[in-house]
Amino acid sequence: MTDIKTIGILGKFGDPSVAQTLHQLVDFIKNQQREVVLDHSTAKILGNKTHEGLSRDQIGERCQMCIIVGGDGTILNAARSLVDYNVPLLGINLGRLGFLSDILPGQMIEKLTKILAGEFFIERRILLHASIQRNGEAISESNAFNDVVIHKNEVGRMIELETYVNGQFVNIQRSDGLIVSTPTGSTAYALSGGGPLMHPSLNAIVLVPICPHTLSNRPIVVDADTEIEIILHDNNYGNAQVTCDGQIKISLEPADCIRIHKKDKPIQLIHPKDYDYFEILRQKLRWAEKL
Amino acid sequence: MTDIKTIGILGKFGDPSVAQTLHQLVDFIKNQQREVVLDHSTAKILGNKTHEGLSRDQIGERCQMCIIVGGDGTILNAARSLVDYNVPLLGINLGRLGFLSDILPGQMIEKLTKILAGEFFIERRILLHASIQRNGEAISESNAFNDVVIHKNEVGRMIELETYVNGQFVNIQRSDGLIVSTPTGSTAYALSGGGPLMHPSLNAIVLVPICPHTLSNRPIVVDADTEIEIILHDNNYGNAQVTCDGQIKISLEPADCIRIHKKDKPIQLIHPKDYDYFEILRQKLRWAEKL
Amino acid sequence: MTDIKTIGILGKFGDPSVAQTLHQLVDFIKNQQREVVLDHSTAKILGNKTHEGLSRDQIGERCQMCIIVGGDGTILNAARSLVDYNVPLLGINLGRLGFLSDILPGQMIEKLTKILAGEFFIERRILLHASIQRNGEAISESNAFNDVVIHKNEVGRMIELETYVNGQFVNIQRSDGLIVSTPTGSTAYALSGGGPLMHPSLNAIVLVPICPHTLSNRPIVVDADTEIEIILHDNNYGNAQVTCDGQIKISLEPADCIRIHKKDKPIQLIHPKDYDYFEILRQKLRWAEKL
Amino acid sequence: MTDIKTIGILGKFGDPSVAQTLHQLVDFIKNQQREVVLDHSTAKILGNKTHEGLSRDQIGERCQMCIIVGGDGTILNAARSLVDYNVPLLGINLGRLGFLSDILPGQMIEKLTKILAGEFFIERRILLHASIQRNGEAISESNAFNDVVIHKNEVGRMIELETYVNGQFVNIQRSDGLIVSTPTGSTAYALSGGGPLMHPSLNAIVLVPICPHTLSNRPIVVDADTEIEIILHDNNYGNAQVTCDGQIKISLEPADCIRIHKKDKPIQLIHPKDYDYFEILRQKLRWAEKL
Repeated sequence: MTDIKTIGILGKFGDPSVAQTLHQLVDFIKNQQREVVLDHSTAKILGNKTHEGLSRDQIGERCQMCIIVGGDGTILNAARSLVDYNVPLLGINLGRLGFLSDILPGQMIEKLTKILAGEFFIERRILLHASIQRNGEAISESNAFNDVVIHKNEVGRMIELETYVNGQFVNIQRSDGLIVSTPTGSTAYALSGGGPLMHPSLNAIVLVPICPHTLSNRPIVVDADTEIEIILHDNNYGNAQVTCDGQIKISLEPADCIRIHKKDKPIQLIHPKDYDYFEILRQKLRWAEKL
Repeated sequence: MTDIKTIGILGKFGDPSVAQTLHQLVDFIKNQQREVVLDHSTAKILGNKTHEGLSRDQIGERCQMCIIVGGDGTILNAARSLVDYNVPLLGINLGRLGFLSDILPGQMIEKLTKILAGEFFIERRILLHASIQRNGEAISESNAFNDVVIHKNEVGRMIELETYVNGQFVNIQRSDGLIVSTPTGSTAYALSGGGPLMHPSLNAIVLVPICPHTLSNRPIVVDADTEIEIILHDNNYGNAQVTCDGQIKISLEPADCIRIHKKDKPIQLIHPKDYDYFEILRQKLRWAEKL
Repeated sequence: MTDIKTIGILGKFGDPSVAQTLHQLVDFIKNQQREVVLDHSTAKILGNKTHEGLSRDQIGERCQMCIIVGGDGTILNAARSLVDYNVPLLGINLGRLGFLSDILPGQMIEKLTKILAGEFFIERRILLHASIQRNGEAISESNAFNDVVIHKNEVGRMIELETYVNGQFVNIQRSDGLIVSTPTGSTAYALSGGGPLMHPSLNAIVLVPICPHTLSNRPIVVDADTEIEIILHDNNYGNAQVTCDGQIKISLEPADCIRIHKKDKPIQLIHPKDYDYFEILRQKLRWAEKL
Repeated sequence: MTDIKTIGILGKFGDPSVAQTLHQLVDFIKNQQREVVLDHSTAKILGNKTHEGLSRDQIGERCQMCIIVGGDGTILNAARSLVDYNVPLLGINLGRLGFLSDILPGQMIEKLTKILAGEFFIERRILLHASIQRNGEAISESNAFNDVVIHKNEVGRMIELETYVNGQFVNIQRSDGLIVSTPTGSTAYALSGGGPLMHPSLNAIVLVPICPHTLSNRPIVVDADTEIEIILHDNNYGNAQVTCDGQIKISLEPADCIRIHKKDKPIQLIHPKDYDYFEILRQKLRWAEKL
């Protein structure tokens, strides 16, 4: 990875505790004779005139690598905004192992040194794109790295959803909502809702009903190249919301259709050579270790 | 049941399709030389000057029996408002078998004739009472026949709840919410959330976490004479709501405490002699019949 | 508890590692001027002429207290054999916290000193009794502290079971089997099978279907004073077994009926004053602690 | 499909009720000027000298199409034995809709006429191959269309399994067993065990733990081109069995390794043009229909 001239750094939004790690990181990269660029919020944390903040698009265009300092939420955010560029992401957490941010601050310099020396591998992960169709027009759209969730707004009332995959009618469900999740999201909300774990390399999407009224409404795994459509029923069950990664929120009206498909480009995650996905699963899910 | 002088009738709120059944019912009871009284909304449906509507409390005080015409929701509503009186309830549905409204309109006259001749039995079922404590004061309270549900308000964010039973700390959970359900409610939302079925005669309450972050946060069944307290954490997870039977809604603030205990009086349900709880379960849950 | 003259000690069957704890225990009790008696297998472990081994019945008749050294399995065994006597049990584990054996060896002397000085409480827990009826005769019977499990024998084929409670038909299920569990057993196999946790004080039994063919065949909680009957269908689904606490095993033939009811006497567990059931749950199920 | 000269027919083993459908089928195909061949057991059912029974391999070599008359079990059996040949299968059930046998006997002639006229499509589905490694040697191997299941033999005792995918350690689980299922098998035993539905077109395998001791041991979906290894632990948990589609059974010894990978050839299923996978799901799982 000797062709890495410019490295972007994105810190967790509005979290001053990230500042120390950011300073250390900036110094290290400069010593490595690479250019550092920051996004607006990260530049603000560093409070430094020498680093003018850039927009996400500018970062996507200028960088050959982007380092994210924060938790999984920060990486979800970065992935959504950078997926249309070919910039690989590297996640550094702030002391608590994440599913995505797998480098601890204490290991940062050691791991980065190796990575910049070419000791790493690239993992490709899919993202979703959701658009809300109302009266035949797309009124809103967003990317999602974990999941697109359609959820009831009103406590105590179910919503009624009609699902199609590749134009084929699947079912009508009455439930609290529906989680449409990538393999990355399968360890997040979809897991709480009863969905399966999916290996990140799998080209698949899972649809997980939330507290469905019909007990045989079980999670369904489909090929990720499937076009998914979910229609909110035009009845008296009250309105609903869509969220992407729990961060972007859009209000729905009856008869709205949520169209979901895989982004044509994957996001690239940079991992140290010794990265072990299942080791992270074992730790986070507290599975018993080898005896 | 020769001492039944006055029978109250409660029809499904604002549903005109109930009118025909109500008229038939009023005529039948009058022919049986019993007095009929109606609540305000039912009197309005019948549009009849001769039947002045009464309040729920007046009905509770004057009637020796109350007939509910509607679905399970109508019975839940009646049970909440009449539980403090000793008036037994009889449910007549509007064509679709309910868990609680187990007499079909077509069988109504035949079944009622037998019931008024003494061929019936009384089933006692528990209700819950929930009060919201804020800064040491009860700011709101309500009865619940199915369940008391604490639920997040905001799509995409969990809430954090701390649970105590009889003053003993149980756990802290991060989840979409918590269902505190009677045996009656165990076939409703609690079932969709992964809770067990509980026989109506069981003196128990089940606490069902909704999409819990920790997978070992499973439903817990406790004795119904247990005092349950649920505290909404004073952190940044956003606010929440409480609902009773999905019908009464109360907004929560951080540090609010929801205190739940069994009502000291049960509600009495009148059933025909041939009532079979498991037969209703088998039909509603589509269990295979005896071969 | 000054009237405790004779204390029985039961050690984990055939486990020599238990010997040291046993010796320490015997010495301590003698110093307290109480008589010690051992069952046959424990006497053998101590290899000591002065302690002649007694049968379980003799222990039940002579002791006012019985100390179990081992894991939960050892306590299950002791409870099944001593439930008909009024001797309370105290569990000491061998280094790994159990749900039932809640005193660690290192705390043993301290805790016992307090208990013998009267600082303890008694917790009553229900047991089940299962009898296998074949052609109208009871061919076998056993007690169970955790659960009575009916399970298929043959890998790859379901069994078909018909369930009755208090003579009422519940359902026919095709499954791998059925777990009939006490509250004590609700943290054991029943939990793995998808059953709810049940507080030990609850007078209830849960029926948990194992991998049922019909997805709406969910766990059912009934009052513990219910008579349960399970009939193995007389068809070609192959034979099955019954186990009590996973330790007693009985082969079934088609049309066999397993009758299960609560033992009329509970088992008494002795706990230190600071015993906290939920603390054990939190540790064993790795629930997040209070922050 | 004008190049179909020879059609094989396989009837449900040892089921005489299939005879009428078989006779009708044979007559129809002969009238269509195609050759009919039968396997040994089907020839025996027809009891006809003119149809000498062939082995499955002979059928695989000679036929351009194979019609299966029976239930899903008969098709599973046929698929396992014919997957190495390129002969597409068509399933006709005996009156009860199956997931695989989707043509009813009453529609048989009409649907077959269209199919032989070219109105059909081919669906490709993956199969698994399992081999049992003992001391470095394959002691047994089999194909599976639904699933490879490792299951405890002894009621009341769990087994301990160690799982690897592509050589990477996944986890150790204590459970009743593990289901390794194709998308086809995801509507069978894997579903009862809590696994997700997987669309038949998905190139994936799901690993479903059966009643796992650790509650976070959830189903895991991996790419079907993954090599899976499951090692039975060399401890005192008793032995276990492997079954393929619940039909082939192999006893395991401690330290045995079960190696599972996708067959390099898929099986081809012939469907009428109006075949609708989700319609079958909706019927079999009793999902609510479009209102």
